[in-house]
Amino acid sequence: MADSRPRLLASDLEGVLVPEIWIAFAEKTGIEQLRLTTRDVSDYDQLMQMRLKILKERNLRLQDIQEVIATISPLPGAGQFIDWIRERAQVVILSDTFYEFAKPLMAQLGYPTILCHSLEVDAVGSITGYRLRLDESKRKAISAFRDLKFQTLALGDSYNDIAMLKRADVGVLFDPPDNVVEDHPDLPVVRNYCEAQAIIGDWLLDRGE
Amino acid sequence: MADSRPRLLASDLEGVLVPEIWIAFAEKTGIEQLRLTTRDVSDYDQLMQMRLKILKERNLRLQDIQEVIATISPLPGAGQFIDWIRERAQVVILSDTFYEFAKPLMAQLGYPTILCHSLEVDAVGSITGYRLRLDESKRKAISAFRDLKFQTLALGDSYNDIAMLKRADVGVLFDPPDNVVEDHPDLPVVRNYCEAQAIIGDWLLDRGE
Repeated sequence: MADSRPRLLASDLEGVLVPEIWIAFAEKTGIEQLRLTTRDVSDYDQLMQMRLKILKERNLRLQDIQEVIATISPLPGAGQFIDWIRERAQVVILSDTFYEFAKPLMAQLGYPTILCHSLEVDAVGSITGYRLRLDESKRKAISAFRDLKFQTLALGDSYNDIAMLKRADVGVLFDPPDNVVEDHPDLPVVRNYCEAQAIIGDWLLDRGE
Repeated sequence: MADSRPRLLASDLEGVLVPEIWIAFAEKTGIEQLRLTTRDVSDYDQLMQMRLKILKERNLRLQDIQEVIATISPLPGAGQFIDWIRERAQVVILSDTFYEFAKPLMAQLGYPTILCHSLEVDAVGSITGYRLRLDESKRKAISAFRDLKFQTLALGDSYNDIAMLKRADVGVLFDPPDNVVEDHPDLPVVRNYCEAQAIIGDWLLDRGE
């Protein structure tokens, strides 16, 4: 008996559909320090406070940052990839970025639904802090969609995606770094949208009759 | 202290964004019996079995039905309304229709995420039955999004939306029949997208600083 639940695909954003936003922003603005990631500074709050301090020192307000992010493009083929899935299944993006940063990129992807976090912005548009919506947000979202009786496939590229990939009915690593593959040899790996579509196509065909 | 949770709007489909699909299908095909709704036949399964029997008698397969549904348009202004919300908040459509029927209409609305039910279709494309994804699916979806720490506004027009509207942080009746208004005088009523945008705009502005 095949699985008759409707299909929902959950995808990470950065590294799967768009470039790493902070790195792309650092390149666009030439602010080298903003290239640091959790690989360089393991404490997330320390990293974010450093980023916000730099933005403040440079007098970069949210609108300035959004204007730069609007010049960043999704990864080549990402729009067609999302559209191809949306014609075949439900799509939700699960990300640890912030709505205010993701928005210019979501516009370019045709506004798929995205569950992520928020920035704190004051009356003049300066970023004063950030708010994580909840902890383990990706894994908990997958659990919620499974409880709502969806069959789920999750796509992600990094350590913060692993709990989501393992909680999903099918978890797939999308073009991950070598260390992630080595640490999780049980997860299938795809390297591009064409390979992802092959796995997603098989998953979609396993329909109950 | 204002509410700092990110915003998610949940909308019913039929009667809010698109016409009642069975009624529109009955008009397009001239099959008068398909105009019956739960107002005429209170037992939902009995109603669905009657509909499926008529489709079988007329030898209408899923593809034939989808081709007719593709000629049905969303309600005037629905596309712009959805796009207006998607630029400002997350949108999920919560419906008791079936994916196979909704799909041609979702294409016209730019594929917003929709959580609904499925049909059973055999190898030659005949509809043999239906599968409700889960009971109380709209209310449970709102509960799930609230548990994921979203602030929710729900829009709906009929009795099967009431539990969702009452579970949401804000519930709004969209152009409902008089009897629904009389039975639920506590729920605010909007009559068109302009009035809905006014309420949604107020709800979006109540942001935490």
